[in-house]
Parts: sequence; structure tokens; C-alpha cells
Amino acid sequence: MAKPEQIPTPAVRRLSLYLRQLDTFRAADRRTVSSKDLGRALGLSDAQVRKDLAYFGQFGHPGIGYRVGELILRLRGILGTDKMSNVLLVGAGNLGRALLAFRGFRKRGFQIVAAFDGDPGKIGTDVAGVEPMRILPISELSRVASERAVRIGILSVPAQAAQQVADDMIAAGIRGILNFAPVTILVPDGVAVSSVDLAVHLEQLLVQQRDYHTDA
Amino acid sequence: MAKPEQIPTPAVRRLSLYLRQLDTFRAADRRTVSSKDLGRALGLSDAQVRKDLAYFGQFGHPGIGYRVGELILRLRGILGTDKMSNVLLVGAGNLGRALLAFRGFRKRGFQIVAAFDGDPGKIGTDVAGVEPMRILPISELSRVASERAVRIGILSVPAQAAQQVADDMIAAGIRGILNFAPVTILVPDGVAVSSVDLAVHLEQLLVQQRDYHTDA
Repeated sequence: MAKPEQIPTPAVRRLSLYLRQLDTFRAADRRTVSSKDLGRALGLSDAQVRKDLAYFGQFGHPGIGYRVGELILRLRGILGTDKMSNVLLVGAGNLGRALLAFRGFRKRGFQIVAAFDGDPGKIGTDVAGVEPMRILPISELSRVASERAVRIGILSVPAQAAQQVADDMIAAGIRGILNFAPVTILVPDGVAVSSVDLAVHLEQLLVQQRDYHTDA
Repeated sequence: MAKPEQIPTPAVRRLSLYLRQLDTFRAADRRTVSSKDLGRALGLSDAQVRKDLAYFGQFGHPGIGYRVGELILRLRGILGTDKMSNVLLVGAGNLGRALLAFRGFRKRGFQIVAAFDGDPGKIGTDVAGVEPMRILPISELSRVASERAVRIGILSVPAQAAQQVADDMIAAGIRGILNFAPVTILVPDGVAVSSVDLAVHLEQLLVQQRDYHTDA
């Protein structure tokens, strides 16, 4: 396996896609898969698939290809999702509550173990979720992050509060932030941010479908 | 303004970021902004900002920079979000219901006008949302898309149903699909797809924070 710093980020990103596609194959009861099948399902060449996977180890079997179940386990091991990771969420508004109830995280190795909010009116109220939980004040972030060994946090507060809350999360030991607030969050080296702005996705679809339409 | 086919896709994508940042500036009561300010807030050079905007027209004022309110209106006009766009949603499960309740779409120019589901047990039930609505059967997709002039759809069904439902949406006239199902959707030319897999974002954060950690 190559050293982490030698592996291109796009290859690491595609590992998630391979894993997702393998889950789909397994759901359809496929036992083995070739690099060609895997690539075709994702719009990639088989050479790309083989090259990407080679960074991480030797997975294929001569004359068989990849064993679906085995490759899933090994990719999970590489990504770290073979063990459940604790995640916390800050911002139990509309979107935050939806994320708490979203069942898709758990089967991919993530469990939201605590929810926080800055609004005193919300503290102590219950939220229905995969696991029901009581909303905690942001002052409890450090204690919970430390006790539950949480290094990843979901940020779903309004735009104007996002930077301050991100700073609080980082001070509490969070090293990866999934940001749903529609602003750019500034973080120090050693902290990773991934931003999801759902309205931006719709905007871009709107432009694309209109341009296609104009061309037609 | 350049012709649509001459404008690089990344420049179109950054328009959404500029607009989002301008909304933030406006919320902070800023009246004018330079390409430098706008770039800095987004981690881009001022030259990049000026180059991107130049594809779409002339927006700056000598000695003033950009007027925030004016640039917002003009970018919305370019993206098409100056008018409300109707959107439909298929898959009123856990995540779908959350998206129906999400208020962030409406202020960015998108309104979910109808929700569909393939499960007969859900048809006719009410969903709480920004606007309460009754869940419709997928057989009604074409009628609603046509009557409400809907060209954009949100796909939030389970992985195994996603391709079939996407095909149904396209047959109903949908030309842009925001896909939350964790599978790759195949679409014909002229249809745009944007995929959001929230678990993939968490996986990538997990890898990144671990590699940073290992390096330290």
C-alpha cells in the first residue's frame, strides 16, 4: 500500500464510490465483479479502477476478479468505516433534525451520538431520530467530544452563526466538519471541511437544464 | 455576455458561490464589495473573480467595485433564480420528508410543489413541510410536471428503486435531477444529474482527519 501522502485525493474520493457501487452489487447478490464491471457502473475505465485500487493493496483474484464481500470489507478497513465512528451535530433546526433522523449514516459506519444547539429554548428538548436524544448546550461540546471520542461533526446552523460554531467545534477537538451552512468556513491546518449546499445543487441544475434547452 | 457553450463549467459553478457570499455580505449590511473582498472570502484570487464575472457581463463600477444588491439581482437573473422555480420530489421517506421541510430552498428560488412516492401505503397521506402537501402516486408525475411546469426533480428513493424512478421522472419531462440515492443514475443527453451522498462526505472527512492525525 502506498503511503497516504503519495495517494492522489481523487483516488481516495473514488474509494467511496467503489464502496457504494459494491454495496449495490451485493444488494443484487453478486459475488464477484471485474474492474470493467465496476468501472462501467461508475463511468470509469477498468484501467482507472485497477490503478486506484493498486494504491491501497492487492485485491483481485486471477480468473475471478474481485470478491464483492471481501473488497467491501477491505475498502471499509481503508476508509475506517469498518468500525462505527461517533459523530456529533450542532444546529438542531429544521435541517439538523432531518439529519438526526436520516438512517443512511448508520449503515455506512457513522452514528450521531449527540446534538447541540445555541438556542436556550431548544436545550433539553427531545429530538426524534434514529436514536432519540436530548439537545445539549454548546458549552457541553468539549466534554461530549472527549468522552465519546468524537472527531467528526455536522454543522447545520444558520449562516451567520457558522464560523463561531465551527471554531467551538474545533476547540472541542473536532477535526472533520460536514458543513451545511451556506457560507465558507475558515479552519486551521489539520482540520478538514466538506461543504454541502443543497440550493447550489438546484441552481446548477437549473442553469444546465436551461442551457440544454436553449441549445435544443 | 459570452455564449453559454463558451463559458467554462467551473465559472458557472462559482457563480453560485459568489451569490451565496454576496447574500452573506448583504446580511451583514454591506453595500459594496471589491473583487478582492469577494475572492478572499471564498479563497479565490481577485483576478479569478473578475474573469468569471466577465463571462456574464459588466458588473463593476469604477472606484466603487460591485454594488452588493445589484450584483445579487444580476447573478440571480443569470442563474434563473430571480423567478421561483417549481421542483418536485419523489421518495417521501425519511430524507424526503426532511427535504420537504427544509426552508433553505425557498429563499434561494426553489419551491417544492409536489411529493410522490411508490409505496401505496403512503399515497394520500399528508406531509408536514414548508407547505403541507399530500403524497401523490408516481403515475401522477407527468400530469403534475406538465401542469406546474416542473423541470427539476429531487430523487430521494432507496438505491434499488432509483434508476426506475429517474426514468419515470425523465419521461415526465424532468430535465435536472438532484439525486440523493447512493447509486449512479444513468440519464440520456439533455438531462443533468447532480448527486449528493451524505455518507460519502463523512467517509472522506474520516479519511482526511485520520491522515492529518497520522502525520502529526
